Parts: sequence; structure tokens; C-alpha cells
Amino acid sequence: MMEDMTRALPQREPLPGLPPRVTIYEVGARDGLQNEKSVVPAQVKAEFITRLLAAGLETVETTSFVSPKWVPQLADASDLLSELGEAGKGPRRPVLVPNERGLDRAMESGVDAVAIFGSATETFAQKNLGRSLAESVEMFRPVVRRSREAGMWVRAYVSMCFGDPWEGPVPVTRVADACVSLMELGCDQLSLGDTIGTGTPGHVEALLAELDRRGLGTDRIGVHFHDTYGQALSNTLTALRAGVSVVDASTGGLGGCPYAKSATGNLATEDLVWMLDGAGVETGVDLDVLVATSTWMAEQLGRPSPSRVVKALAGA
Amino acid sequence: MMEDMTRALPQREPLPGLPPRVTIYEVGARDGLQNEKSVVPAQVKAEFITRLLAAGLETVETTSFVSPKWVPQLADASDLLSELGEAGKGPRRPVLVPNERGLDRAMESGVDAVAIFGSATETFAQKNLGRSLAESVEMFRPVVRRSREAGMWVRAYVSMCFGDPWEGPVPVTRVADACVSLMELGCDQLSLGDTIGTGTPGHVEALLAELDRRGLGTDRIGVHFHDTYGQALSNTLTALRAGVSVVDASTGGLGGCPYAKSATGNLATEDLVWMLDGAGVETGVDLDVLVATSTWMAEQLGRPSPSRVVKALAGA
Repeated sequence: MMEDMTRALPQREPLPGLPPRVTIYEVGARDGLQNEKSVVPAQVKAEFITRLLAAGLETVETTSFVSPKWVPQLADASDLLSELGEAGKGPRRPVLVPNERGLDRAMESGVDAVAIFGSATETFAQKNLGRSLAESVEMFRPVVRRSREAGMWVRAYVSMCFGDPWEGPVPVTRVADACVSLMELGCDQLSLGDTIGTGTPGHVEALLAELDRRGLGTDRIGVHFHDTYGQALSNTLTALRAGVSVVDASTGGLGGCPYAKSATGNLATEDLVWMLDGAGVETGVDLDVLVATSTWMAEQLGRPSPSRVVKALAGA
Repeated sequence: MMEDMTRALPQREPLPGLPPRVTIYEVGARDGLQNEKSVVPAQVKAEFITRLLAAGLETVETTSFVSPKWVPQLADASDLLSELGEAGKGPRRPVLVPNERGLDRAMESGVDAVAIFGSATETFAQKNLGRSLAESVEMFRPVVRRSREAGMWVRAYVSMCFGDPWEGPVPVTRVADACVSLMELGCDQLSLGDTIGTGTPGHVEALLAELDRRGLGTDRIGVHFHDTYGQALSNTLTALRAGVSVVDASTGGLGGCPYAKSATGNLATEDLVWMLDGAGVETGVDLDVLVATSTWMAEQLGRPSPSRVVKALAGA
């Protein structure tokens, strides 16, 4: 029987050119759970979020005020926020709001941060938002204005930034157009979504360079990579080297994209933390506590986590 | 029903600083299969290799002349090479030889390239080779000498370069000592093995820098990353940016490390090719043919490929 020293690893060897600290924008509770078929009780979601916070995650998206008709899983958004109390408030507990009706409900719940969900392509705007790209920007305009007036922090997600299942390749100039339109509404942060996971490192650099040319620097940009083609972590590393310091990730790798063939979805927070721990980049996260959280959540959902780190550390 | 344009992806966007061409050193037939419990017939192995070559892989390690007592799966090494005929010959069809007896058998089979399998740590040398590190170098000395005299190409694998399950972190200076000792025997190429998959990008850069200081430049170095902690592709990307242009990978992600807790093993060739295709780096590989090969091999083995690209493209 071997002595197991693997938990003494990863060996810490700094990588020059990375930011000293990375903000992990944890999406497991919202993006991770939204496509779960059987509804997770609000109490379980609240415990999940409480455990994520205890693991050291500082920015946690809690839920979405999307119509319960469209996403029954998130119909309990108000209940969940009641359950969370103060832990669900503040600028680092955003909720997704798809439109003004969602914003009304979010405001009733007393949240201090919201995220809107736009598109980089015409086709996805039509399929997901039921309107043209230009019309979707107009739909978001009063959402962002009213959020800002209420003193909220506002994030703009942009989907299909690295490929679109209907349109195929998307020129970076068109992605940048969509990003600029949303940020001009007055958003604080942009999240570049590789919704179907097809992006690769050169593409990441090219898009970030185009955004920089258009006045959107990496200080206002987060990245949101999916691991459908195994590229999420190397794309993230590439973005970090280009100056990005906000990375979306989902504890346990929860979640998938309904528009991609494979069930494999979000970058697992644990796999990201392993890399950053090794590189000496601060995240504030205790990896062992996080793995225990994923293991607990996997039991609630009745299936194993797809995170490689969780499998390696918890699957002993 | 959506039109599927994802196969038009990845979008090609070159990443500055990568080599224009990468040699994939395909290990699926040897490293990938060696831990399979049920013996794969030599004819199936031969067809697998023939398909790998047809997919455009130019360097394929075919088998190992390890003792059949230790690895029954590879007891058919001579038969397999007979089956392959000319396709198993030449400097780009190496076979593993653990010792002089293995070299004798490899020579009888008429191969033109061999690989030896050393260790970076004392403990792994003791556990895997049954002798000290220094003694293992002496064991390899006549193997390399005789191979060179016979005009063969010689590769030196070094295991546990980024962490050891018994020793924990391994200082890069000690890894470099082991690498230098093996290369001084007269090997052509070094393969740095992250056998338990714990390495991270800063560690990769640190080891490559130490090797460079010791006179071992990236022109003689290949990298062999395991995906146990999800780090294989970002580590590979880091090595490529540092000048490495030889990457070990296993079609379909076949293989695991018996010394790590998780079954997740080698970097999947398909996930690597997806990244390199996107970055405009030439590999000579036709990804669709390779995915079809993995799908066929998964049927032979009776279980799905762990490659994310194979799941995404073949799992439609």
C-alpha cells in the first residue's frame, strides 16, 4: 500500500505574467443547477451556497429571476433569497435578471447586484431571447438603467462569443460589437461566454485584443469557458496571461449547455483552483472544503461530479 | 431541431509564440492499453495502429518488450510487430524496452527506435525498477549504447517529474539531475512525465528553465501530461509556449496511471488536436478520422472514451 502524498501537491511554482489574485465568479448555484431536471429544494440550494461561501468563494451568483415557466428549477428564487438572508445580499451576490419583470422581482428580494444575459449572435438572440440583437439591447436598456439608479452592481453576460451552433464561427469584430452595445448601457463587468466550448487559446487572445481596441480593457472582463471540448482551463490560462482576473467557474463542474451536444459543461471550480494554487495565485478558496462541498452536492443530485480534481481527491 | 455548425469549428485564430508544427507522439497503443485488464488481441492492436497512422499520426509507439510476467497485455509484442510488417518499422515507430533482455527481443523484431523508462525519484525507481536511481542509470547504459550502435533512435522517458505519490513535491533540480543522467547515456529525446498529473503551468516553466540551464534545450524535449487533475492541456500549452514541439498524447484518452488514485490518465490526442487546430498549429492529423478511430476502439474495449472531444463529436 503506497503512502499517499498527493494532497501535499500541487507543488507551488509561480508562473510569471499571471495576476497575483483571481476572483472566481462562482456560477454553480445558478448556471450549474438551472438545467437539472428534478427540482432541488430551496433549502438544499441555500446550504450549497452557504458551503461555497465557507470554502472561501467570495463572489457567488445565487439564482435567476427568469420566468418559472421557462426554468422551473429556479422558480424558488425569492424563497432561496429569504432563506439566505444577509448571506444573499451585497455586491458580490448577483442574481440573473432576464428582463424588467425579473428585475422587479429581484428588487423585491433586496439584492444588490444583477446580471443580464445577452448574445453575440443574431441567431442565439432570436432563439434564446425571441428578438433581434438590437431589440435585445433595447430590452436590457431600462433593466440596466434602473439597476444603476438603485445603486446595484451590474454584469453583462454575452453568450456564443467563440462559436455558435447555428452560425458556426463568429468574427471577433461582431462579438466586440455586441459586447460594446451592452457595456454602453452602463454595466460594470462583461462575461465572455464560450457557451458551446469550442474556443481555443488563439481565439481568446484575438477577442481580448479586439475588445481592448474598442476600449474594453481586461479590468472589466470576466471569462466563462465550457469544457465541452476539454479547452476550458487552457483558455482560462490564456485569458489570465492576457490580464483578465475574473473567471467564472462552477463547483463540481455542475451544469451543461442545452445548445451543445455533450453534457459536459462549465469549467469545474476545483480544476481551476488546483491550477491557481500551483501557480501561487490567490483565490481565497480552501480546495479540500470545496471538494467536500462537491461531494455533498453530488450526493444530493445522485450522480458523481465531472470535475477531475473531485474524482481524484474524493474518489480514493 | 437545430442546424449543427459546430463541426465548422474550432475557429482558426493563431496564437503567437507557438511552434508552427507540433509532433504528436502517440502513446495510445502502448501506454494506453498496457493497463487494460482483458487482453486485446494483437490483430485489434494492429488495426488500431493502422487506423492511427491513417488519421495522420506520424509518430506512434507500438508496444513494449517488458516481461510478459509483469504486463501480460503486451506479451504479444513480437506478434504485433510481425502483424504490422513495414508499418512497425522506422525511426518513428518506437517500442519500449525496459532492459537489455527487452532490447534483445526488440532487435529480433527488427525495430528502428526504442524508448527507455526511467524515474525522477528514488522511491519510484525502487518501486518500479527495483533498484536505486543510480543503479537504474547503469542498467540503461548498455541498452542505450547497443541501441545507438545499431543505429536506432532512442528516447528516455522520465517518470514523476512533477510530483511523486510517495515523496510529494520533487525539486526541479533533482528532476534535472535524473534527466541529465539519462540523456548523457546518448538518448535523442527526453519525455518529461507528469505521471500522477499534479503538475501546473508554473511548474512546467520552472522545470523547462532548469533543464535549459543544464544544457537540455526544448529541441530535445517532449512532454507527457496526465489529465488526472484536469491540468494536461494547460500544461501542454505552457510547454509549447516555452518552445517544446513534441507532445505525448493517447488517442481517446486511453490509459491511466496505476500509481494515482483516479483512473483518468493520458491527455487525449483529440483534445490536443482541437486546441492545435484552433491555433493554426500543424499536426498532420485529421480529427474526424481520429474520433472515428477512438469510437471504434471504445467498442473493442466495451466502454466510452474519456476524451471530451470524442464525447462531444461522437456522442451526438
